[in-house]
Amino acid sequence: MIISTKKGTPQTELDSIVHNFEKQGLAVTLIRGTDYNVFGLVGDTTKIAEKDVLANPWVENVTRVSAPYKRANRLFHPADSIIDVGGVKIGGNAPFAIMAGPCSIEGEEQICRLAAEVQQGGATLLRGGAYKPRTSPYSFQGLGTEGILDMVKARQKTGMPIVSELMSEERIDEFEEYVDLVQIGARNMQNFQLLKAVGKMHKPILLKRGLANTIEEWIMSAEYIMAGGNEQVILCERGIRTFEKYTRNTLDLSAVPVIKEKTHLPVIVDPSHATGDWKLVESMALAAVAAGADGLEIEVHDDPPRAWSDGAQCLKPDKFADMVAKCKRVAAAVGRDM
Amino acid sequence: MIISTKKGTPQTELDSIVHNFEKQGLAVTLIRGTDYNVFGLVGDTTKIAEKDVLANPWVENVTRVSAPYKRANRLFHPADSIIDVGGVKIGGNAPFAIMAGPCSIEGEEQICRLAAEVQQGGATLLRGGAYKPRTSPYSFQGLGTEGILDMVKARQKTGMPIVSELMSEERIDEFEEYVDLVQIGARNMQNFQLLKAVGKMHKPILLKRGLANTIEEWIMSAEYIMAGGNEQVILCERGIRTFEKYTRNTLDLSAVPVIKEKTHLPVIVDPSHATGDWKLVESMALAAVAAGADGLEIEVHDDPPRAWSDGAQCLKPDKFADMVAKCKRVAAAVGRDM
Amino acid sequence: MIISTKKGTPQTELDSIVHNFEKQGLAVTLIRGTDYNVFGLVGDTTKIAEKDVLANPWVENVTRVSAPYKRANRLFHPADSIIDVGGVKIGGNAPFAIMAGPCSIEGEEQICRLAAEVQQGGATLLRGGAYKPRTSPYSFQGLGTEGILDMVKARQKTGMPIVSELMSEERIDEFEEYVDLVQIGARNMQNFQLLKAVGKMHKPILLKRGLANTIEEWIMSAEYIMAGGNEQVILCERGIRTFEKYTRNTLDLSAVPVIKEKTHLPVIVDPSHATGDWKLVESMALAAVAAGADGLEIEVHDDPPRAWSDGAQCLKPDKFADMVAKCKRVAAAVGRDM
Amino acid sequence: MIISTKKGTPQTELDSIVHNFEKQGLAVTLIRGTDYNVFGLVGDTTKIAEKDVLANPWVENVTRVSAPYKRANRLFHPADSIIDVGGVKIGGNAPFAIMAGPCSIEGEEQICRLAAEVQQGGATLLRGGAYKPRTSPYSFQGLGTEGILDMVKARQKTGMPIVSELMSEERIDEFEEYVDLVQIGARNMQNFQLLKAVGKMHKPILLKRGLANTIEEWIMSAEYIMAGGNEQVILCERGIRTFEKYTRNTLDLSAVPVIKEKTHLPVIVDPSHATGDWKLVESMALAAVAAGADGLEIEVHDDPPRAWSDGAQCLKPDKFADMVAKCKRVAAAVGRDM
Repeated sequence: MIISTKKGTPQTELDSIVHNFEKQGLAVTLIRGTDYNVFGLVGDTTKIAEKDVLANPWVENVTRVSAPYKRANRLFHPADSIIDVGGVKIGGNAPFAIMAGPCSIEGEEQICRLAAEVQQGGATLLRGGAYKPRTSPYSFQGLGTEGILDMVKARQKTGMPIVSELMSEERIDEFEEYVDLVQIGARNMQNFQLLKAVGKMHKPILLKRGLANTIEEWIMSAEYIMAGGNEQVILCERGIRTFEKYTRNTLDLSAVPVIKEKTHLPVIVDPSHATGDWKLVESMALAAVAAGADGLEIEVHDDPPRAWSDGAQCLKPDKFADMVAKCKRVAAAVGRDM
Repeated sequence: MIISTKKGTPQTELDSIVHNFEKQGLAVTLIRGTDYNVFGLVGDTTKIAEKDVLANPWVENVTRVSAPYKRANRLFHPADSIIDVGGVKIGGNAPFAIMAGPCSIEGEEQICRLAAEVQQGGATLLRGGAYKPRTSPYSFQGLGTEGILDMVKARQKTGMPIVSELMSEERIDEFEEYVDLVQIGARNMQNFQLLKAVGKMHKPILLKRGLANTIEEWIMSAEYIMAGGNEQVILCERGIRTFEKYTRNTLDLSAVPVIKEKTHLPVIVDPSHATGDWKLVESMALAAVAAGADGLEIEVHDDPPRAWSDGAQCLKPDKFADMVAKCKRVAAAVGRDM
Repeated sequence: MIISTKKGTPQTELDSIVHNFEKQGLAVTLIRGTDYNVFGLVGDTTKIAEKDVLANPWVENVTRVSAPYKRANRLFHPADSIIDVGGVKIGGNAPFAIMAGPCSIEGEEQICRLAAEVQQGGATLLRGGAYKPRTSPYSFQGLGTEGILDMVKARQKTGMPIVSELMSEERIDEFEEYVDLVQIGARNMQNFQLLKAVGKMHKPILLKRGLANTIEEWIMSAEYIMAGGNEQVILCERGIRTFEKYTRNTLDLSAVPVIKEKTHLPVIVDPSHATGDWKLVESMALAAVAAGADGLEIEVHDDPPRAWSDGAQCLKPDKFADMVAKCKRVAAAVGRDM
Repeated sequence: MIISTKKGTPQTELDSIVHNFEKQGLAVTLIRGTDYNVFGLVGDTTKIAEKDVLANPWVENVTRVSAPYKRANRLFHPADSIIDVGGVKIGGNAPFAIMAGPCSIEGEEQICRLAAEVQQGGATLLRGGAYKPRTSPYSFQGLGTEGILDMVKARQKTGMPIVSELMSEERIDEFEEYVDLVQIGARNMQNFQLLKAVGKMHKPILLKRGLANTIEEWIMSAEYIMAGGNEQVILCERGIRTFEKYTRNTLDLSAVPVIKEKTHLPVIVDPSHATGDWKLVESMALAAVAAGADGLEIEVHDDPPRAWSDGAQCLKPDKFADMVAKCKRVAAAVGRDM
C-alpha cells in the first residue's frame, strides 16, 4: 500500500502515521518530496481499508498495490481450482459446463420434462428457481420447498446435479440436503450475512456478480465465503447495469479473462439474464466460450410466453440444442473440451 | 399498460392476447395500425411484469402507464405520510429531522459522549452502526448486540431515538425490542427476504437506496415492506454508483422531488456516504434541505482518523454544529421548520 | 408512436393533440380508459421527438414503436450492406476484416515497418493515428498531415487500405484525397457538425460508439451521415463507460447482434481501446468473432513501452499474429470466412 | 506520481525506468519492498499520461499525486477567478448569475418578448440556441445566423449579455462578433479541435460537462482552452448519464464543491437539461444555490408544448420569476448576493 500526504504535513503527523502502521506489523518507508511525502507499506495490508486511511486529513491519496484478497488470489494459488458439483467438474481443464433449465420451477411434471429436454440438448447440470427474487411483491415468488423437491425428482430421473438460488439463511439446511450447487443471486452479492452463512456450508457456491459491483468487490464477496471455510466457489458474470436500454443489462465478458488472471476460481457466464432477450443469447453464449469461460447458465422453457417468469429470455429446447452444438465447435476452436 | 405487437401478428395470436388479459380481469382495447397493433389494458396491472409480456415473440413493446406500486403511490394517498420515530415525527410538515452519530459504535463511553455532542449540535436522532456491512471479511464487522445495548444507554441519557442497521432476519427480535428506526442498508435494498421480514415489524423502517437501483425499484422495495403490513417507511437517498471518481458515489438529489411527486413517504438524505468526503458533506446537506428533503443522516466522530470505520466522511462535532446552524437558515428560507 | 395522457385531461386538449398530429400527416386513434387515454399514431414519426411531445403537461408517457431511423433500418433494407474500403469488402458474407497498426504514427519508417509486420500477421487494413484526441493538452497530439503522408507510403508498399481518425471539418479534403476509411472517434460520435460534413464525403466512414451513448443514439449518428448522402457507414463498438475499474471501458459485445438485428450496416469491434490492457485483447477479439462481428480493429506496436501513446493496450506483432491465427479457427467454427 | 513495479522486475528494468524519468527532468526515489518496488517522481508530471507508463509490462500501478492540470488548478491560483461576461461578473463574490431563455430561438419577436419576460423575472443574462445539437438529423436544427442576429436585437432592447452554443469552428468569427458568452455543449466537451479553437477567442467560454465525463476530464477540457490562451472559462454542471430513468440525466451537485476545491473557476448549474422535467427544475435550482454554485442556466418558454425543442423542461415566465424569488431567499441564507 502506498500513501501520499499533503504538502506541509507536520513532522509529528508523519511520525504518528509511521508509528501507527508499524504497530500493525508493517514495514514503512518514507519518500520526501517538495510537494508531498510518500509512505510505502510492506506486509499484509488486507486488513487496512483505503477509506479509513483517507480519514486522516493530511493524507492525499492511497493506492493498494497488493490485492485486498488472499484466498481467491491466483498469486498465492497459481493452479486453477476445479470444483466438483455433484460429480461434474468445473474449472481448469475440466470440460465446459452447461447449466440449463427454466427460470422458475412450475411443478414436477414441468421440471422433469425440461430436464430431459435440456439433457438431450447437451446440458450437464439442471438449473431451476424455487425461491425467486422479484422486484414486485405482487409477482410470483417461487414454489419454495415444493420446487426444490420437484428438482430432486428431476435429478433422480436424469442424473444431472441441480443448481438453485438460496435467498435466506433460514433455508440453508434445505439446500445443504438437496441442492448440488447453491446459487447466490446478483442482488445478494453483498448480503454479507448470507455470504458468511454459506461460507459454513459443504456445498459449492455459485456467486453471481452484483448489478453494480466491480470485479474487485465480487472477488471480495468470494473471499467472504472462502474465509468462512468454504473454498468451493464458482463465479458467474451475468451483466452489469449501465445506461443502455436495448439490453436488460450489459454483459461484461472482459470479466472472464480478468477473473482468470486475478483468481484461481472457475468463472461461468449467464447470457440469459445479461441480455434479457432470447434472440441475443446464442451470440453471447458463443462469445463466452471464445472468451475462455468455464461454463454457461442458460434459461430454457418449452413455452416461453407462458413461463411463470422471465419468458422473454428463455430459449426453446430445440434452439438450445442448436446453440450447444455451435458452442461445441467454438470450444474445439479454442482448444476446450466440451 | 400499453402493448404493441409486430407487423404481421396473426389474428389468432391477437385473440389469444386479448383473451389472456381479459381472464385476468382487465379491459382490453385494440388499435390496428399498418405497421403494428396496439393493445390498451385498463384495470389493476400491478401483478403483470413487463418482461413476462415481452416473452411473447409477437410483442414489440410494453409501456406501463400506471405505476407498479399501490401502497406507496401518492395517487391513492395524496396526503404526506408522517412517521413517528420514538416520539420524533418525520415527513409532511414535521420539523426537519437530523440523525447523527458515528459510523460504528465503538463502546458505551464513545457513543454516550458522541450522543451528547451531536444533540448539543442540533441532532434529533442518534445513529450508530452495530452490525457493519464491510466489503472485506477482514475488516471490523461491528460490536453486534453489545453495540446495540451501548446505544440504548445513550438513548437513556439523551432521550434521542436511535437508528441502526439491521443486516439479518436473525436479529429482528433484538431490533424490535431496542431500536427505534430500523435501517435497511443500500446493499440489502433488494434482499427481498429481509424486506418481507421487516414488513412484519412494528418499528419504522429507514430504507436506503441501492447503489445501482432506479427510483422505481426503490419504491418497489418500500412496497414490499408495506405489502407485509408495515406502512412506516422512510426513504433515504445516499448516492448511486457512477463512473465519477472524485466522490465515492454520486448523490442524486433529484430523487427528493421525484419521491415527493410519486409517493407520500418521507425522504431523507445521507451526504456522508454519498460523497465519502467530509469536506463535501456540508454543501450537500444544505442542498438537500433546499431540495425539500425531510431530514439528514450525518456521520459524526470526534477523532475521525481513529474512527473504526469510514473516518474520511465524518464531521467533527463542532463542524457538525456549524452545518446544522446553516441548515436552519436554509430551512427557514424554504419555509421549513427545523 | 403511442402517447398516453393523464386522468382528467380536458376534451379540448385531447382534440388539440389529435389535430396537431393529423396536421403532420399522421393517422391518430384514441383509446379511452378510466385512468388515462391513449393515442396511437400511425405514419412516419421519425420527425417527432419524444421529449417534445412530453412538453404537453397533460401527456404522461410516450413510447416509440417504430425506430427513429430510416436509412440505417434493416426493416426497410433487409439485405446486409457490404462496404468497399479501398478494394477490401466489409460486412455481409465478406471475409472477416482485420484492421491493425499503431495507435500513433511515429514516422514513415515506423509505420512502414509495422504495416509489413501486421500484414504478415494477417491484417487486411492498416490503422494509424495522425490526429490524436488526447485528454490533456500537454500530451502528444499526433503528427498531422505528415503522419497521413507516412501512411500513404505504407499503403504503397503493402497494398493495404488505410484507416485514420478525422477530428475536424478542416481536414476533410486531406482525408478525401488520402484516407480509405475515415474514422470518427468515440468523443466525436455526437459532433453533429462533423457528422454532417462526412455525410458529404465519398469515402466510407468508420463510426465509433461514444463512451456513454446508447445503441440507438449510435445508429442515429450513422443516420446523420447517411441522411447527408453517404451511405457507406461501418460501426465500431469500442467499450462504454461504467463503474468498473479493472478495465478502461466495458466492451459491450451484445451491441454486435443488436446492430445486426436493427440495421443492415457492418459492425466491427475494437478490443484494444475497450479493455485498455493488451492481456485482455486476445480473449475479447475471439469473443467478438464468435459474437458475429464483421471485423476487428487492433493496436499493434513493436515496442509498447516506448509507444508515443496507448502502449499499454498494444499487442506486439508476434502476439498479434497468434491472435489472428486463433481468430481464424473461431471464424471457421461459426462459419465465417477470414 | 507514484509508480509501483511487479515482484521480480529485473534491476536493468528498474535502472531504465529511473533513467527514462530523469531524462524528463524529474527526481526519482526508489523504495524496495519484498513484493514490489515503488518509484516516487517529483517535478512537473503533467506531460506524463498514466496509461503510457502502464505500457511497461513491469509496471503494476500508477498513481497521480499532483493533478494533471496547471492553469485551472487552485493550488497555483488560490483566488477565485471572476469572469466578466459583457459587463456581468460571474464567480468569486460576484452576485449569483441567472441565465435564462428559450432552448431554441424561434424568431426575433419571440426572443425579444422572452428576453423582456426573463429579465422581469430576475435573469441577468439571456440564453438561446441558434445552432442545436439534435440526436436526430430529422429534428429542427436551429435558425443559425438568423437566430444569433435575433438575439443581438434582444440584447439591444434589454441590455442583457447573450449566451449561445457554438458547434463548429466555422462559426467562430460570428460568435466572436456577436455573442457574449460562448457555450460549448456537453456533446462537444471532448471535441478537442473546437476547444483549441475557442482557446484563441477573446470571449468567455461556458464549458458544459460531458454526459459521461469525470470531473477531472472536464477540468482537463478547461485546461485545453486555457492552454490556448483564453483563461475566461466558466464551468456548467448539467447532469451525467446513469441508469436512472425518471430523470433525463442525474444532476451531480457534488461537482460544485469539488470544482471549487480543485479549481479557481466559476461553476454554474443547468437544472433544465439535467432533469429534463420542468417540475424538478425549481428544487434543483434551490439546491444548486445552497450547494455554492455561482449561477444557473434555466430554460424558459411561454408556451412549452409549442416550443420548437425541449419544451418538457421549460418553465413558464411566471414560474421562473417565482423560482428566482425563492433562490434569492436561499442565496441570502448562505450569504450570497443575488
